[in-house]
Amino acid sequence: MSAEPSSVPTTSSPAAPRYGVWLVGARGSVATTAVAGCAAVAAGLHPPTGMVTETPDFAASGLPPLASLVFGGHDTVDCPLPKRAEHLAEGGVLPHGLPAAVHAELLAADREIRPGGPTLRDSDTGPTLRDSDTGPARTDDDWIDVFAADIRDFTDRHHLAGTVVVNVASTEPAPAAGALPPSSLYAAAALRAGCGYVNFTPSTGLHHPALAQLAAEAGVPYAGRDGKTGQTLLRSVLGPMFQQRALAVRAWSGTNLLGGGDGAALADPAAAAAKNAGKERVLADTLGAAPEGEVHIDDVPALGDWKTAWDHIAFDGFLGSRMILQTIWQGCDSALAAPLVLDLARLLLRAGQQGITGPLGELGFYFKDPVGDGPASLGEQYTELKRFAARLSDTARPTDEAGDSGAHR
Amino acid sequence: MSAEPSSVPTTSSPAAPRYGVWLVGARGSVATTAVAGCAAVAAGLHPPTGMVTETPDFAASGLPPLASLVFGGHDTVDCPLPKRAEHLAEGGVLPHGLPAAVHAELLAADREIRPGGPTLRDSDTGPTLRDSDTGPARTDDDWIDVFAADIRDFTDRHHLAGTVVVNVASTEPAPAAGALPPSSLYAAAALRAGCGYVNFTPSTGLHHPALAQLAAEAGVPYAGRDGKTGQTLLRSVLGPMFQQRALAVRAWSGTNLLGGGDGAALADPAAAAAKNAGKERVLADTLGAAPEGEVHIDDVPALGDWKTAWDHIAFDGFLGSRMILQTIWQGCDSALAAPLVLDLARLLLRAGQQGITGPLGELGFYFKDPVGDGPASLGEQYTELKRFAARLSDTARPTDEAGDSGAHR
Amino acid sequence: MSAEPSSVPTTSSPAAPRYGVWLVGARGSVATTAVAGCAAVAAGLHPPTGMVTETPDFAASGLPPLASLVFGGHDTVDCPLPKRAEHLAEGGVLPHGLPAAVHAELLAADREIRPGGPTLRDSDTGPTLRDSDTGPARTDDDWIDVFAADIRDFTDRHHLAGTVVVNVASTEPAPAAGALPPSSLYAAAALRAGCGYVNFTPSTGLHHPALAQLAAEAGVPYAGRDGKTGQTLLRSVLGPMFQQRALAVRAWSGTNLLGGGDGAALADPAAAAAKNAGKERVLADTLGAAPEGEVHIDDVPALGDWKTAWDHIAFDGFLGSRMILQTIWQGCDSALAAPLVLDLARLLLRAGQQGITGPLGELGFYFKDPVGDGPASLGEQYTELKRFAARLSDTARPTDEAGDSGAHR
Amino acid sequence: MSAEPSSVPTTSSPAAPRYGVWLVGARGSVATTAVAGCAAVAAGLHPPTGMVTETPDFAASGLPPLASLVFGGHDTVDCPLPKRAEHLAEGGVLPHGLPAAVHAELLAADREIRPGGPTLRDSDTGPTLRDSDTGPARTDDDWIDVFAADIRDFTDRHHLAGTVVVNVASTEPAPAAGALPPSSLYAAAALRAGCGYVNFTPSTGLHHPALAQLAAEAGVPYAGRDGKTGQTLLRSVLGPMFQQRALAVRAWSGTNLLGGGDGAALADPAAAAAKNAGKERVLADTLGAAPEGEVHIDDVPALGDWKTAWDHIAFDGFLGSRMILQTIWQGCDSALAAPLVLDLARLLLRAGQQGITGPLGELGFYFKDPVGDGPASLGEQYTELKRFAARLSDTARPTDEAGDSGAHR
Repeated sequence: MSAEPSSVPTTSSPAAPRYGVWLVGARGSVATTAVAGCAAVAAGLHPPTGMVTETPDFAASGLPPLASLVFGGHDTVDCPLPKRAEHLAEGGVLPHGLPAAVHAELLAADREIRPGGPTLRDSDTGPTLRDSDTGPARTDDDWIDVFAADIRDFTDRHHLAGTVVVNVASTEPAPAAGALPPSSLYAAAALRAGCGYVNFTPSTGLHHPALAQLAAEAGVPYAGRDGKTGQTLLRSVLGPMFQQRALAVRAWSGTNLLGGGDGAALADPAAAAAKNAGKERVLADTLGAAPEGEVHIDDVPALGDWKTAWDHIAFDGFLGSRMILQTIWQGCDSALAAPLVLDLARLLLRAGQQGITGPLGELGFYFKDPVGDGPASLGEQYTELKRFAARLSDTARPTDEAGDSGAHR
Repeated sequence: MSAEPSSVPTTSSPAAPRYGVWLVGARGSVATTAVAGCAAVAAGLHPPTGMVTETPDFAASGLPPLASLVFGGHDTVDCPLPKRAEHLAEGGVLPHGLPAAVHAELLAADREIRPGGPTLRDSDTGPTLRDSDTGPARTDDDWIDVFAADIRDFTDRHHLAGTVVVNVASTEPAPAAGALPPSSLYAAAALRAGCGYVNFTPSTGLHHPALAQLAAEAGVPYAGRDGKTGQTLLRSVLGPMFQQRALAVRAWSGTNLLGGGDGAALADPAAAAAKNAGKERVLADTLGAAPEGEVHIDDVPALGDWKTAWDHIAFDGFLGSRMILQTIWQGCDSALAAPLVLDLARLLLRAGQQGITGPLGELGFYFKDPVGDGPASLGEQYTELKRFAARLSDTARPTDEAGDSGAHR
Repeated sequence: MSAEPSSVPTTSSPAAPRYGVWLVGARGSVATTAVAGCAAVAAGLHPPTGMVTETPDFAASGLPPLASLVFGGHDTVDCPLPKRAEHLAEGGVLPHGLPAAVHAELLAADREIRPGGPTLRDSDTGPTLRDSDTGPARTDDDWIDVFAADIRDFTDRHHLAGTVVVNVASTEPAPAAGALPPSSLYAAAALRAGCGYVNFTPSTGLHHPALAQLAAEAGVPYAGRDGKTGQTLLRSVLGPMFQQRALAVRAWSGTNLLGGGDGAALADPAAAAAKNAGKERVLADTLGAAPEGEVHIDDVPALGDWKTAWDHIAFDGFLGSRMILQTIWQGCDSALAAPLVLDLARLLLRAGQQGITGPLGELGFYFKDPVGDGPASLGEQYTELKRFAARLSDTARPTDEAGDSGAHR
Repeated sequence: MSAEPSSVPTTSSPAAPRYGVWLVGARGSVATTAVAGCAAVAAGLHPPTGMVTETPDFAASGLPPLASLVFGGHDTVDCPLPKRAEHLAEGGVLPHGLPAAVHAELLAADREIRPGGPTLRDSDTGPTLRDSDTGPARTDDDWIDVFAADIRDFTDRHHLAGTVVVNVASTEPAPAAGALPPSSLYAAAALRAGCGYVNFTPSTGLHHPALAQLAAEAGVPYAGRDGKTGQTLLRSVLGPMFQQRALAVRAWSGTNLLGGGDGAALADPAAAAAKNAGKERVLADTLGAAPEGEVHIDDVPALGDWKTAWDHIAFDGFLGSRMILQTIWQGCDSALAAPLVLDLARLLLRAGQQGITGPLGELGFYFKDPVGDGPASLGEQYTELKRFAARLSDTARPTDEAGDSGAHR
């Protein structure tokens, strides 16, 4: 993060290139944690725990430094980032003192947040007006134009060498047939603005038939969807274990308790259905077939941003002996998601710079429901990720960094 | 398993070759389950759940069929295998009805069990007499000779195409300096008899300086030690998960509750120390450094052959957020170990047949403390195992099967 | 249990009185376990683990001996009790060998099972015909008459000194307005036959407005409803603990995994709703107010008759510190319920004999949703139960046992 | 807490009486939390969660108001209370902002802390000098005199209507025969100063033969020992549940993970032994006999002041069916202990005022190893506690409050 990250440079392009991270849902817990954490790690206040791209295997990949990232985004709520960060500190998600320490960076990012459009709550009746316009209602295409213009403006004003759009908004319900859900409008806007796109949520995003052609022709890298942060992360290592040991999983049941906005959003059965589909896909892919068992997602406001996931796995051993594995995962979703969001932003920015476009199947490590046909086991996904890291380095594929200024042109 | 597996053939060698599995601790739970289970699966009474060598990746490896295995072994206790199997069925380890269904095979194996020598209890004062001999006490070398003769006699009488020795006896305390512990006497006997050797326990076995030269020159394959069946199996997939996600494990604590003979043996602090060393090694290898935390092994006779392992992992996420994963594994150790013992016996028999000798580092998948320098993560170990499976096939390295009858010549 | 429990005595009344236990759902897991277990304990094959009425506090209560109980009942399924018992033994619910050991008693009880009437599945459309009658459909009153006649016939043929009716059938969905659900027809039949009545399930039974007057005038003891066997048993001791320590429970969440018929029945949301109401009542009563949190009941056929219940309790301590208690209960519902069914049968038979009638609030110890206004904490309920035990003794209230032969006259 | 709780009044006795709480281990986590929490609750900053004496049943008991309590104590460490409180807030034990809000009260208490004497580490070689005196070593009696003088001085300077001494120091190892351990020196000093005494730890305190006579004649109330705050609290409600339901507990195993000073102190096997004895006593008392199973206490510094206790209970149900209950308790020991310390201080101060002396068996609710012969089940202990609360009221036993100013005269 540069010394004055929020000031719009008045002179020509600075010596060191800077990069944009445009967050859809920019005032949510994950976005706030990502912005605050990026600043804190860049300043040396905290080690980069949880950031895979800061491990030695990525040192030669030419990733944008954390200090070079500039944040902006869309959101439909008003609470300023510094205030949101204070709330998170009170809930134990951010360390006490951190919001004050990175106040400037939070404020800078907050100034770059533009109002989002059709709200999630309205999505079932199709997009609605952003303001109390008295003119005719905007069409999907109108919205995409507005959003793309916001992104382009951000990129231009900051002379960014590239911008990536990352969806970290609350999960939206499965869309009605026909209308594009909000997440897809933002995804289309990313393409229209020539930016790479990451869908960290189970929402539709680019996974919409109406956007298939667009995505294929956009010439930008994209990845998703649904970040693998807790229960599914575990499942992606435990499923392979059972399969490799030829143990027969008979039933895999799970319950998630979570408060915060995510708990409330997922208490909506339609939203939960989208999320659970991803969880079950991991099991079916690693075990060969989906076992018995359900997954519950409960909204428990008392837990705040903390999440507890209990899994109960009934499996058969030799001669039909009945055995059981149970796991209890207690974590903070924002703290699990934010470093991965930073990882993905850097990887896509660099991919765009290196001319790598289209669906990035090599990033299956990060997702419940990855694009492409990669392996489902975390270990194999990690191997693919490291291979991708090597592919990003200049040695792997020399490019003219100055002449190819990245994703948004 | 042939129709009369235990009868000494009176005619010349049969058409299909048969192979010997010589179990040290042949009347224990693991051995009994392996013998009964091999017969049950060979007869189609149960699917081969838990046997990795019965999965498609091993179909072309030329492994000895289950029906071709002939069992014998050493033990210091007298309880006949059919009776032991009945006990295990009462405790829910074997399915009811199974001991009766495979009575002939249990009886056949029981007839091939020879009295073991120096008992575990006496080991701290050095080997003692097998019988109440009035003659001079036997030396280590005498014991090795006696055991090797037992193994050779078994192999010859059954016209076996090869024999592998597998240690599945109760864990012995860490040996006093000087004297060879019993497990090492059996291991040396395996070498002397020209047989492959597997140490499925944390006992010393071939890991003794006095045996190093012998092992190097024996021209047989060997593997070990300490089968990875429960808590450590989990650790070998969870450790890499934390490392790959750059999460900082701060403390990893565990408690094992188990009854049966194993519980009592491991209640001995010296035996537990041997076992725990293996568990901690897996963590140190996968995490980069050993975290805080202890491992307890409690003898709880009420649990019989069932084992419960609780693990509590405190780890840090982004910005130092404190998170916790807990796992509870409830399994039957014999049912977890027996199919792996069959796997290992088949793999070593085949390796011997193919002229593969020395330490088999590629079998790290099975062990807490593998020989050689292989990876510590289960996923990578599985990849190595599959590579080994391919290497065993005739296509990989054609041999004259008839002329090279394997490990014991 | 007498030597020939099922033979209809041809001579006059035997020296020792015998008592009837009429089970609604007589071929279910709970009923089968109760019948087999009563015989096994009476014969000294097993200690009376789980039977509170066999503890010293009940020794002077004059309860009918286990050997004096004669079983019969209604059911809509055909599987004979001995065969059902074999199934339970295969699933590990009954000890192997027990079905054979008590075969005579199972057969005797099976001969006394009469076809039930309107099946649970049909209940939403109101009662249907028992057989493919071509005559006019039976009214509720017709059904009650038929059932009551079955009970009276059983009581008379066996010269029983009293009979109690216990509902252990699968949970039925919440009834539609108007029609009496099947459980209420059986309950009404118990009253009409002059028998005590216990509702061990969450079904309606006597809790129906149409039966209130009848119950008040019947002059028989009754108790219920919904046996407290696992998760709710725990809640009834943990809830008071939090309340007594002035700790603030913020959220109490739970998931139940169970197979068997119960799992399938409770997968029906309507049936689950009935059950969950009872669980939540216990919390609200012991904590003062119902905390946040949901309860899930999942049908997991792989678990058979075994049940796992996970509870997660988030509570606040001093100065708002956040703490968590989790419990995992792994039990066999039939084995938990059956001894309580025997307890209740004996207590109600004795109560009837002593002239104690109406709702037995003192039996709240056994139920999630007890009749009357007793305490909700298990400890206080136990104190009440012991007081009731004292009240049942002849010393407490002398009666002419010969002249007052109990509930059914 | 009065406006200026620490200033020594220069005028005559104030209108409202004030009371002293003298904490042995006054700079530890529990003491700091008690002092800070008392101030916070008295000021209305937090509700009195966890304080039983603030529930309605105690409203008429005449307990000293929280605002009337004045704190002082002994400790061998130097870290000032305000700084200690900051550490606790960083570790999440105290709410952020609280140390600042109650800084005056923390400072006031800190000024009343006198140096403790023989440190725990030296206890095995008998008491040592407090300072580097060049004179002769102090005898036990010298130490008791010094400590008693400290307490009397505190009481007199503040014109307190009574003072109670509460031991909340780290657990000391089981004492060597002969020498009085430090905890007993402080206990004796309490008696010599005419103060009530509470031992909230498993240390010896008044449980020493050499103090029996003294305790009997001191004419002060005393209670202990070993506060029941987590695992044992649970055991005191679960044990009775199993017993009341006639379920046969076969094995009860437990592991405690805790950091902080307590973890380190209890990693000492001798200290752990003292603590475990209390835990096992609760089981033996509630179950009738001690079941199989061990209890481990692990020092896990990464957990700080937070504690995790896992319990695994194997029990038999009807017909020998095997069932398991597991509990996981995650709490903050200081936050659990501190409100109970305040409860006990108030109860003993009031008892002394009402002339109630000797061992207070009615306070078994609070302890693992209570004085006297009370019940072991928490429910019954709670009933006794409420009875004691009633006994404390003036109606129960009118006294001349002005004339009988309590424990220390």
